[in-house]
Amino acid sequence: MVEEATLVEIDNSVIELSKKYLPHMACSYDNPKVKVVLQDGFKFLKDCASKEESQKYGVIITDSSDPEGPAENFFTENYYQLLYDALTPDGVATSMASENIWLNIKKLAHLRKAASQVFPVARVSNCTIPTYTSGQIAILCCAKNSHVDVSTPIRTVTESKEGILFKYYNHQIHSASFVLPTWAKNIIYQ
Amino acid sequence: MVEEATLVEIDNSVIELSKKYLPHMACSYDNPKVKVVLQDGFKFLKDCASKEESQKYGVIITDSSDPEGPAENFFTENYYQLLYDALTPDGVATSMASENIWLNIKKLAHLRKAASQVFPVARVSNCTIPTYTSGQIAILCCAKNSHVDVSTPIRTVTESKEGILFKYYNHQIHSASFVLPTWAKNIIYQ
Repeated sequence: MVEEATLVEIDNSVIELSKKYLPHMACSYDNPKVKVVLQDGFKFLKDCASKEESQKYGVIITDSSDPEGPAENFFTENYYQLLYDALTPDGVATSMASENIWLNIKKLAHLRKAASQVFPVARVSNCTIPTYTSGQIAILCCAKNSHVDVSTPIRTVTESKEGILFKYYNHQIHSASFVLPTWAKNIIYQ
Repeated sequence: MVEEATLVEIDNSVIELSKKYLPHMACSYDNPKVKVVLQDGFKFLKDCASKEESQKYGVIITDSSDPEGPAENFFTENYYQLLYDALTPDGVATSMASENIWLNIKKLAHLRKAASQVFPVARVSNCTIPTYTSGQIAILCCAKNSHVDVSTPIRTVTESKEGILFKYYNHQIHSASFVLPTWAKNIIYQ
Protein backbone atom coordinates (compact mmCIF):
# COMPACT_ATOMS: atom_id res chain seq x y z
CA MET A 1 0.00 0.00 0.00
CA VAL A 2 1.49 3.33 -1.05
CA GLU A 3 1.21 5.86 1.79
CA GLU A 4 2.87 8.80 0.11
CA ALA A 5 4.60 9.51 -3.21
CA THR A 6 6.98 12.45 -3.54
CA LEU A 7 7.78 13.67 -7.04
CA VAL A 8 10.90 15.80 -7.32
CA GLU A 9 11.15 17.69 -10.60
CA ILE A 10 13.61 20.48 -11.42
CA ASP A 11 11.57 21.96 -14.27
CA ASN A 12 7.94 22.97 -13.75
CA SER A 13 7.29 23.09 -17.49
CA VAL A 14 7.72 19.29 -17.58
CA ILE A 15 4.78 19.04 -15.17
CA GLU A 16 2.68 21.59 -17.05
CA LEU A 17 3.31 19.94 -20.43
CA SER A 18 2.49 16.51 -18.93
CA LYS A 19 -0.85 17.87 -17.74
CA LYS A 20 -1.52 19.29 -21.19
CA TYR A 21 -0.42 16.40 -23.40
CA LEU A 22 -0.58 13.33 -21.12
CA PRO A 23 -3.74 13.97 -19.06
CA HIS A 24 -4.40 10.24 -18.51
CA MET A 25 -1.08 9.99 -16.68
CA ALA A 26 -0.91 13.49 -15.20
CA CYS A 27 -4.25 12.96 -13.39
CA SER A 28 -2.17 11.39 -10.60
CA TYR A 29 -1.01 14.88 -9.62
CA ASP A 30 -4.48 15.28 -8.11
CA ASN A 31 -4.06 12.22 -5.89
CA PRO A 32 -3.94 13.42 -2.24
CA LYS A 33 -1.03 11.04 -1.55
CA VAL A 34 1.16 12.84 -4.09
CA LYS A 35 3.53 15.57 -2.97
CA VAL A 36 5.35 17.59 -5.65
CA VAL A 37 8.67 19.28 -4.92
CA LEU A 38 10.18 21.62 -7.49
CA GLN A 39 13.87 21.07 -6.91
CA ASP A 40 17.02 19.41 -8.20
CA GLY A 41 16.63 15.75 -7.21
CA PHE A 42 20.30 15.42 -6.24
CA LYS A 43 20.02 18.40 -3.87
CA PHE A 44 16.73 17.05 -2.51
CA LEU A 45 18.34 13.76 -1.45
CA LYS A 46 21.38 15.59 -0.04
CA ASP A 47 19.09 17.76 2.08
CA CYS A 48 17.21 14.65 3.25
CA ALA A 49 20.46 13.30 4.64
CA SER A 50 21.37 16.54 6.42
CA LYS A 51 17.85 16.86 7.85
CA GLU A 52 18.24 13.37 9.26
CA GLU A 53 15.41 12.15 7.10
CA SER A 54 17.44 9.10 6.15
CA GLN A 55 15.94 5.64 5.69
CA LYS A 56 12.62 7.20 4.82
CA TYR A 57 11.70 5.88 1.37
CA GLY A 58 10.69 2.35 0.41
CA VAL A 59 11.20 2.90 -3.31
CA ILE A 60 13.10 5.59 -5.22
CA ILE A 61 12.70 5.78 -9.00
CA THR A 62 15.15 8.05 -10.84
CA ASP A 63 14.03 9.02 -14.31
CA SER A 64 16.76 11.49 -15.14
CA SER A 65 18.16 12.99 -18.31
CA ASP A 66 21.20 11.64 -20.12
CA PRO A 67 24.52 10.89 -18.36
CA GLU A 68 26.29 13.66 -20.26
CA GLY A 69 25.41 17.24 -19.31
CA PRO A 70 23.35 18.70 -16.45
CA ALA A 71 22.14 15.30 -15.15
CA GLU A 72 25.59 13.71 -14.86
CA ASN A 73 25.41 13.76 -11.04
CA PHE A 74 22.79 11.01 -11.20
CA PHE A 75 25.32 8.62 -12.71
CA THR A 76 27.92 8.75 -9.94
CA GLU A 77 28.73 6.61 -6.92
CA ASN A 78 27.89 9.68 -4.80
CA TYR A 79 24.31 9.61 -6.03
CA TYR A 80 23.99 5.90 -5.30
CA GLN A 81 25.20 6.63 -1.77
CA LEU A 82 22.48 9.28 -1.36
CA LEU A 83 19.88 6.78 -2.62
CA TYR A 84 21.20 4.16 -0.20
CA ASP A 85 20.98 6.54 2.75
CA ALA A 86 17.45 7.67 1.88
CA LEU A 87 16.03 4.13 1.57
CA THR A 88 14.49 2.00 4.30
CA PRO A 89 16.53 -1.16 5.10
CA ASP A 90 14.44 -3.18 2.62
CA GLY A 91 14.23 -0.34 0.11
CA VAL A 92 14.72 -0.60 -3.64
CA ALA A 93 16.05 2.03 -6.06
CA THR A 94 15.66 1.92 -9.81
CA SER A 95 17.24 4.29 -12.26
CA MET A 96 17.17 4.70 -15.99
CA ALA A 97 20.67 3.83 -17.17
CA SER A 98 20.42 5.91 -20.38
CA GLU A 99 22.28 3.16 -22.15
CA ASN A 100 21.60 -0.31 -23.37
CA ILE A 101 23.68 -3.42 -23.92
CA TRP A 102 24.07 -2.83 -27.67
CA LEU A 103 25.08 0.83 -27.72
CA ASN A 104 27.52 1.32 -24.87
CA ILE A 105 27.81 -1.73 -22.68
CA LYS A 106 31.09 -0.59 -21.13
CA LYS A 107 29.42 2.52 -19.77
CA LEU A 108 26.50 0.46 -18.51
CA ALA A 109 28.88 -1.99 -16.83
CA HIS A 110 30.76 0.94 -15.29
CA LEU A 111 27.51 2.41 -13.93
CA ARG A 112 26.46 -0.91 -12.44
CA LYS A 113 29.87 -1.28 -10.85
CA ALA A 114 29.57 2.19 -9.27
CA ALA A 115 26.15 1.23 -7.87
CA SER A 116 27.47 -2.11 -6.61
CA GLN A 117 30.14 -0.29 -4.57
CA VAL A 118 27.24 0.99 -2.46
CA PHE A 119 24.42 -1.55 -2.85
CA PRO A 120 24.79 -5.30 -2.21
CA VAL A 121 22.29 -5.88 -5.04
CA ALA A 122 22.72 -4.00 -8.34
CA ARG A 123 21.18 -5.65 -11.40
CA VAL A 124 20.54 -4.58 -14.96
CA SER A 125 17.15 -5.08 -16.58
CA ASN A 126 16.21 -4.40 -20.16
CA CYS A 127 13.11 -2.66 -21.42
CA THR A 128 11.98 -2.33 -25.05
CA ILE A 129 10.92 1.21 -26.00
CA PRO A 130 11.11 1.95 -29.74
CA THR A 131 11.69 5.70 -29.32
CA TYR A 132 15.04 5.09 -27.63
CA THR A 133 18.06 4.60 -29.86
CA SER A 134 18.38 0.91 -30.64
CA GLY A 135 14.82 0.35 -29.33
CA GLN A 136 15.88 -0.48 -25.79
CA ILE A 137 16.82 1.10 -22.50
CA ALA A 138 18.47 -0.46 -19.49
CA ILE A 139 17.13 0.05 -15.99
CA LEU A 140 19.41 -0.44 -13.02
CA CYS A 141 17.73 -2.01 -9.97
CA CYS A 142 19.41 -1.82 -6.58
CA ALA A 143 18.43 -3.22 -3.20
CA LYS A 144 19.83 -2.42 0.23
CA ASN A 145 19.08 -5.85 1.65
CA SER A 146 21.27 -8.52 0.07
CA HIS A 147 18.42 -11.04 0.36
CA VAL A 148 16.12 -9.06 -1.92
CA ASP A 149 15.79 -10.65 -5.37
CA VAL A 150 14.84 -7.65 -7.51
CA SER A 151 14.00 -9.92 -10.47
CA THR A 152 11.00 -11.38 -8.63
CA PRO A 153 7.97 -9.15 -7.98
CA ILE A 154 7.28 -8.64 -4.26
CA ARG A 155 3.66 -7.74 -4.80
CA THR A 156 1.58 -9.78 -7.22
CA VAL A 157 -1.96 -9.17 -8.33
CA THR A 158 -4.27 -11.42 -10.31
CA GLU A 159 -3.69 -11.56 -14.05
CA SER A 160 -6.99 -9.81 -14.79
CA LYS A 161 -6.21 -6.97 -12.35
CA GLU A 162 -2.70 -6.72 -13.80
CA GLY A 163 -4.26 -6.28 -17.25
CA ILE A 164 -6.36 -3.37 -15.98
CA LEU A 165 -3.55 -1.66 -14.08
CA PHE A 166 -0.74 -1.87 -16.62
CA LYS A 167 -0.32 -1.73 -20.39
CA TYR A 168 3.27 -3.01 -20.60
CA TYR A 169 4.06 -4.55 -17.22
CA ASN A 170 3.14 -8.03 -16.08
CA HIS A 171 4.81 -10.31 -13.54
CA GLN A 172 6.37 -12.49 -16.27
CA ILE A 173 7.95 -9.49 -18.01
CA HIS A 174 9.30 -8.28 -14.66
CA SER A 175 11.48 -11.40 -14.35
CA ALA A 176 12.19 -11.75 -18.09
CA SER A 177 13.58 -8.21 -18.28
CA PHE A 178 16.54 -9.24 -16.08
CA VAL A 179 17.59 -11.98 -18.49
CA LEU A 180 20.45 -10.82 -20.71
CA PRO A 181 22.24 -12.37 -23.68
CA THR A 182 25.30 -14.32 -22.51
CA TRP A 183 27.85 -11.91 -24.00
CA ALA A 184 26.18 -8.95 -22.23
CA LYS A 185 25.83 -10.77 -18.91
CA ASN A 186 29.54 -11.62 -18.98
CA ILE A 187 30.57 -7.98 -19.47
CA ILE A 188 28.09 -6.48 -17.02
CA TYR A 189 28.68 -8.87 -14.12
CA GLN A 190 32.38 -9.54 -14.66
CA MET B 1 22.19 -35.24 -31.70
CA VAL B 2 21.98 -33.66 -35.14
CA GLU B 3 22.22 -36.37 -37.82
CA GLU B 4 21.92 -34.16 -40.87
CA ALA B 5 21.38 -30.50 -41.63
CA THR B 6 20.09 -29.40 -45.03
CA LEU B 7 20.57 -25.79 -46.03
CA VAL B 8 18.36 -24.56 -48.84
CA GLU B 9 19.49 -21.26 -50.33
CA ILE B 10 18.22 -19.68 -53.54
CA ASP B 11 21.24 -17.44 -54.13
CA ASN B 12 24.75 -18.93 -54.22
CA SER B 13 26.35 -15.51 -53.75
CA VAL B 14 24.91 -15.45 -50.18
CA ILE B 15 26.94 -18.59 -49.46
CA GLU B 16 30.07 -17.27 -51.17
CA LEU B 17 29.90 -13.92 -49.36
CA SER B 18 29.33 -15.72 -46.03
CA LYS B 19 32.48 -17.73 -46.61
CA LYS B 20 34.40 -14.56 -47.41
CA TYR B 21 33.14 -12.26 -44.66
CA LEU B 22 31.84 -14.59 -41.93
CA PRO B 23 34.41 -17.42 -41.97
CA HIS B 24 33.84 -18.28 -38.27
CA MET B 25 30.22 -19.13 -39.11
CA ALA B 26 30.68 -20.37 -42.68
CA CYS B 27 33.15 -23.04 -41.51
CA SER B 28 30.06 -25.20 -40.84
CA TYR B 29 29.71 -25.68 -44.60
CA ASP B 30 32.65 -28.07 -44.24
CA ASN B 31 30.84 -30.21 -41.68
CA PRO B 32 30.14 -33.63 -43.27
CA LYS B 33 26.59 -33.59 -41.84
CA VAL B 34 25.72 -30.46 -43.83
CA LYS B 35 24.00 -30.78 -47.20
CA VAL B 36 23.56 -27.63 -49.30
CA VAL B 37 20.76 -27.34 -51.87
CA LEU B 38 20.70 -24.35 -54.21
CA GLN B 39 16.96 -23.93 -54.70
CA ASP B 40 13.93 -21.88 -53.75
CA GLY B 41 12.99 -23.08 -50.25
CA PHE B 42 9.28 -23.01 -51.01
CA LYS B 43 9.77 -25.23 -54.05
CA PHE B 44 12.09 -27.51 -52.06
CA LEU B 45 9.40 -28.20 -49.45
CA LYS B 46 6.74 -28.64 -52.13
CA ASP B 47 8.94 -31.21 -53.87
CA CYS B 48 9.50 -32.99 -50.53
CA ALA B 49 5.75 -33.46 -50.24
CA SER B 50 5.39 -34.79 -53.80
CA LYS B 51 8.37 -37.11 -53.33
CA GLU B 52 6.66 -38.50 -50.24
CA GLU B 53 9.48 -37.27 -48.10
CA SER B 54 6.99 -35.92 -45.62
CA GLN B 55 7.51 -36.05 -41.85
CA LYS B 56 11.26 -36.07 -42.40
CA TYR B 57 12.62 -33.07 -40.51
CA GLY B 58 12.80 -32.57 -36.75
CA VAL B 59 13.46 -28.83 -36.98
CA ILE B 60 12.93 -26.37 -39.84
CA ILE B 61 14.33 -22.86 -39.50
CA THR B 62 13.16 -20.32 -42.10
CA ASP B 63 15.36 -17.25 -42.35
CA SER B 64 13.73 -15.61 -45.35
CA SER B 65 13.66 -12.10 -46.78
CA ASP B 66 10.92 -9.57 -46.04
CA PRO B 67 7.20 -10.39 -46.38
CA GLU B 68 6.83 -7.96 -49.29
CA GLY B 69 8.39 -8.99 -52.59
CA PRO B 70 9.97 -12.24 -53.78
CA ALA B 71 9.83 -13.96 -50.36
CA GLU B 72 6.10 -13.35 -49.76
CA ASN B 73 5.31 -17.06 -50.20
CA PHE B 74 7.01 -17.73 -46.85
CA PHE B 75 4.39 -15.68 -45.05
CA THR B 76 1.31 -17.61 -46.15
CA GLU B 77 -0.81 -20.37 -44.64
CA ASN B 78 0.28 -22.53 -47.61
CA TYR B 79 3.89 -22.33 -46.49
CA TYR B 80 2.95 -23.26 -42.93
CA GLN B 81 1.13 -26.28 -44.34
CA LEU B 82 4.30 -27.32 -46.23
CA LEU B 83 6.30 -26.93 -43.02
CA TYR B 84 3.73 -28.99 -41.12
CA ASP B 85 3.86 -31.78 -43.69
CA ALA B 86 7.66 -31.88 -43.76
CA LEU B 87 8.06 -32.13 -39.97
CA THR B 88 8.20 -35.26 -37.83
CA PRO B 89 5.22 -35.60 -35.43
CA ASP B 90 7.22 -33.88 -32.66
CA GLY B 91 8.87 -31.40 -35.04
CA VAL B 92 9.29 -27.68 -34.50
CA ALA B 93 9.42 -24.89 -37.10
CA THR B 94 10.70 -21.39 -36.46
CA SER B 95 10.53 -18.52 -38.88
CA MET B 96 11.66 -14.94 -38.82
CA ALA B 97 8.47 -12.88 -38.77
CA SER B 98 10.13 -9.79 -40.33
CA GLU B 99 8.08 -7.67 -37.96
CA ASN B 100 8.06 -6.83 -34.31
CA ILE B 101 5.41 -5.84 -31.80
CA TRP B 102 6.17 -2.11 -32.06
CA LEU B 103 6.27 -1.65 -35.82
CA ASN B 104 3.41 -3.70 -37.24
CA ILE B 105 1.73 -5.82 -34.63
CA LYS B 106 -1.39 -6.36 -36.75
CA LYS B 107 0.69 -8.01 -39.46
CA LEU B 108 2.50 -10.11 -36.86
CA ALA B 109 -0.84 -11.15 -35.31
CA HIS B 110 -2.15 -12.00 -38.78
CA LEU B 111 0.93 -14.15 -39.52
CA ARG B 112 0.59 -15.99 -36.21
CA LYS B 113 -3.07 -16.59 -36.93
CA ALA B 114 -2.23 -18.04 -40.36
CA ALA B 115 0.31 -20.37 -38.72
CA SER B 116 -2.17 -21.36 -36.00
CA GLN B 117 -4.66 -22.50 -38.66
CA VAL B 118 -2.16 -25.26 -39.38
CA PHE B 119 -0.15 -25.78 -36.18
CA PRO B 120 -1.70 -26.44 -32.75
CA VAL B 121 1.17 -24.45 -31.22
CA ALA B 122 2.14 -21.08 -32.77
CA ARG B 123 3.89 -18.64 -30.45
CA VAL B 124 5.69 -15.36 -30.90
CA SER B 125 9.10 -14.76 -29.35
CA ASN B 126 11.08 -11.55 -29.39
CA CYS B 127 14.76 -11.14 -30.11
CA THR B 128 16.83 -7.95 -29.73
CA ILE B 129 19.03 -7.20 -32.74
CA PRO B 130 20.02 -3.55 -33.09
CA THR B 131 20.43 -3.64 -36.88
CA TYR B 132 16.72 -4.34 -37.35
CA THR B 133 14.37 -1.38 -37.40
CA SER B 134 13.24 -0.70 -33.86
CA GLY B 135 16.03 -2.95 -32.54
CA GLN B 136 13.92 -6.09 -32.43
CA ILE B 137 12.65 -8.93 -34.55
CA ALA B 138 9.91 -11.43 -33.82
CA ILE B 139 10.41 -15.15 -34.35
CA LEU B 140 7.40 -17.38 -34.81
CA CYS B 141 7.74 -20.83 -33.22
CA CYS B 142 5.37 -23.61 -34.21
CA ALA B 143 5.02 -27.18 -32.99
CA LYS B 144 3.06 -30.03 -34.51
CA ASN B 145 2.43 -31.76 -31.19
CA SER B 146 0.08 -29.73 -28.99
CA HIS B 147 1.94 -30.90 -25.87
CA VAL B 148 5.22 -29.27 -26.93
CA ASP B 149 5.96 -26.11 -24.94
CA VAL B 150 8.21 -24.20 -27.33
CA SER B 151 9.13 -21.69 -24.60
CA THR B 152 11.04 -24.35 -22.64
CA PRO B 153 14.30 -25.73 -24.08
CA ILE B 154 14.11 -29.46 -24.81
CA ARG B 155 17.86 -29.91 -24.67
CA THR B 156 19.85 -28.28 -21.91
CA VAL B 157 23.58 -28.15 -21.49
CA THR B 158 25.62 -26.98 -18.51
CA GLU B 159 25.99 -23.22 -18.09
CA SER B 160 29.71 -23.38 -18.86
CA LYS B 161 29.15 -25.37 -22.04
CA GLU B 162 26.34 -22.99 -23.03
CA GLY B 163 28.79 -20.11 -22.66
CA ILE B 164 31.21 -21.78 -25.06
CA LEU B 165 28.59 -22.77 -27.64
CA PHE B 166 26.56 -19.55 -27.86
CA LYS B 167 27.19 -15.81 -27.67
CA TYR B 168 23.56 -14.67 -27.34
CA TYR B 169 21.54 -17.75 -26.44
CA ASN B 170 21.14 -19.23 -22.99
CA HIS B 171 18.32 -21.31 -21.52
CA GLN B 172 16.96 -18.34 -19.54
CA ILE B 173 16.77 -16.11 -22.62
CA HIS B 174 15.01 -18.90 -24.51
CA SER B 175 12.05 -18.72 -22.11
CA ALA B 176 12.24 -14.95 -21.53
CA SER B 177 11.97 -14.23 -25.26
CA PHE B 178 8.40 -15.57 -25.27
CA VAL B 179 7.27 -13.06 -22.64
CA LEU B 180 5.53 -10.10 -24.25
CA PRO B 181 4.19 -6.82 -22.88
CA THR B 182 0.51 -7.17 -21.91
CA TRP B 183 -0.79 -4.93 -24.72
CA ALA B 184 1.12 -6.97 -27.33
CA LYS B 185 0.10 -10.34 -25.85
CA ASN B 186 -3.55 -9.27 -26.00
CA ILE B 187 -3.38 -8.37 -29.69
CA ILE B 188 -1.28 -11.35 -30.80
CA TYR B 189 -3.25 -14.06 -28.97
CA GLN B 190 -6.72 -12.55 -29.23
